[in-house]
Amino acid sequence: MMTHTGDFLQDLLRKLPGPDEAAAAGVMRRQADLTKPPGSLGLLEEIVAWLAAWQRREMPRLDQVDVIVFAGNHGVTAQGVSPYPPSVTAQMVANFEAGGAAINQIARANGAAFSVVPLMLDRPTADFTVEPAMTPLEFRKALAAGYDAVVPGTDLLCLGEMGIGNTTAAAAISAALFGGPALRWAGRGTGLDAEGVTHKAAVVERALALHGEALNDPWEVARRLGGRETAAILGAVLAARRHSIPVLLDGFVCSAAAAPLAKLLPDGLDHCMIGHVSAEAGHRHLVQELHRPALLNLDMRLGEGSGAAVAVSIFRAAVACHTGMATFSQAGVANRD
Amino acid sequence: MMTHTGDFLQDLLRKLPGPDEAAAAGVMRRQADLTKPPGSLGLLEEIVAWLAAWQRREMPRLDQVDVIVFAGNHGVTAQGVSPYPPSVTAQMVANFEAGGAAINQIARANGAAFSVVPLMLDRPTADFTVEPAMTPLEFRKALAAGYDAVVPGTDLLCLGEMGIGNTTAAAAISAALFGGPALRWAGRGTGLDAEGVTHKAAVVERALALHGEALNDPWEVARRLGGRETAAILGAVLAARRHSIPVLLDGFVCSAAAAPLAKLLPDGLDHCMIGHVSAEAGHRHLVQELHRPALLNLDMRLGEGSGAAVAVSIFRAAVACHTGMATFSQAGVANRD
Repeated sequence: MMTHTGDFLQDLLRKLPGPDEAAAAGVMRRQADLTKPPGSLGLLEEIVAWLAAWQRREMPRLDQVDVIVFAGNHGVTAQGVSPYPPSVTAQMVANFEAGGAAINQIARANGAAFSVVPLMLDRPTADFTVEPAMTPLEFRKALAAGYDAVVPGTDLLCLGEMGIGNTTAAAAISAALFGGPALRWAGRGTGLDAEGVTHKAAVVERALALHGEALNDPWEVARRLGGRETAAILGAVLAARRHSIPVLLDGFVCSAAAAPLAKLLPDGLDHCMIGHVSAEAGHRHLVQELHRPALLNLDMRLGEGSGAAVAVSIFRAAVACHTGMATFSQAGVANRD
Repeated sequence: MMTHTGDFLQDLLRKLPGPDEAAAAGVMRRQADLTKPPGSLGLLEEIVAWLAAWQRREMPRLDQVDVIVFAGNHGVTAQGVSPYPPSVTAQMVANFEAGGAAINQIARANGAAFSVVPLMLDRPTADFTVEPAMTPLEFRKALAAGYDAVVPGTDLLCLGEMGIGNTTAAAAISAALFGGPALRWAGRGTGLDAEGVTHKAAVVERALALHGEALNDPWEVARRLGGRETAAILGAVLAARRHSIPVLLDGFVCSAAAAPLAKLLPDGLDHCMIGHVSAEAGHRHLVQELHRPALLNLDMRLGEGSGAAVAVSIFRAAVACHTGMATFSQAGVANRD
């Protein structure tokens, strides 16, 4: 079990800073004086207050927006859960590095810095229908890789993933944490047909039966069912909280990767928003379970941080309004009766 | 009635170009070869195909994105339908011109050119609970002002409006075109309370009763119930179609302004998408009636083109992916089994 990593993990959870409510209140005061009916910018106003609270800064900024994609390979692909071969993970990492993937274009379009962190792609995790995906040491190393990838001083962190087979891992994590039949969580991934989805759900059910009560511990869910890239995302989410960096999660896999933290601490994901609701079937259920705002709903299901990176533009519009708009008195506009 | 303007209006509807299906097909062919599972960019892929179809260009571009806000004043404000005085319309136009409004910041953040067209703000339309809002000549002039504001060669046109009282006009237009009780269409506007909304709905009902069967003609709906800014939006939508410019409509008022065209021609708004679903209550009903995609749902209800301008960033991400991504063969990535 987690005995020799338990202290390390519990340490990660200690003294995580909460929001700076005074900074958020400062935002709300300024919003009330800007030339628009109160609340009429909707979520844009909430985004600014939330950024302020987690950046601990009354005038939030987006000078340094980072997109980090973690990549890992999954032993569960031996169960035939993806129409793509596992070799595609490394090929797509090369594509990321060459600037040819969707996330490269979206990050550039939205002024975000992009990096990819491949995690031992030549050593897939174990097949979690047979044994835990990672040993405690492997899990801890992957978590640390994510933790260390986060640069203090970042203004907004977008997280993403690449890993053939990882929607199956995400379905297993979600089912273990939030229950319900595996078919609630198993979706088409990169393009399964209905039969493939049924098979994927059966694979998840088998894993849940194998690991049994060990899954009552959210850390064990992440270690036994996740991949190195999902563990790294969990580590990055923790590091971001520690460094007062707000986080935009991407779709289903990314949200599932972070989800154990919501079980470990009731406010564990309060510094995260979800960039978009993925078309991957399980995601809308997961968004509901996580009780975090999801900004876009564009029928995307690519992963690689793409939905989070698209949502950066919403954040830029929100901050631009907050910092650039005139107040009623500055503009000589009459406020309401 | 419309006798002396009817020919002019019918002329506007003649020979409106349809979509360039070959350009859209070219987009779909390229999409299938880009390094992503088929369809995984969801609406982003549809947006590119749609842009190509209406720009008549297989590689669509967004070099020139324009935001035009039309402003007008409404005689129906005499009925006490807004918490803000009509003088705010001109004050906000000055704010737009000085660069202090939300739309200025959002347009700049998304690389869009902004202009505002005030339409005789010192001559409000007539109170449509008493008589038609505009004479045929006034209507035709407002329509032409919108038509002429559109610059041929624009790659994407975002339309918006400003006009104290114009959510009441939009509710009346929507109720006249699509039926249902006025309360389905009357919302809080810039900030009415529940009693105010009930009163607004009663004002709309009174107008519908007054104008009666004249409202069977969609042109008459726009003339009798709309404002100069809503007529201008209708004219701009027609000009955009004529010049092969795709259009992003904004929220409730902007969609209602364009809605008569959907009644005049079954495919009249096919060159338009809706930037966002507004929090203004009637808009989600109107989006359903118009059968056009609505991209964002951010609880915004400001108007002034703000939701459309935020959505420009989604278009930019879509086009960036389409033009910048590597193909499977370029990237050396294995396609599915």
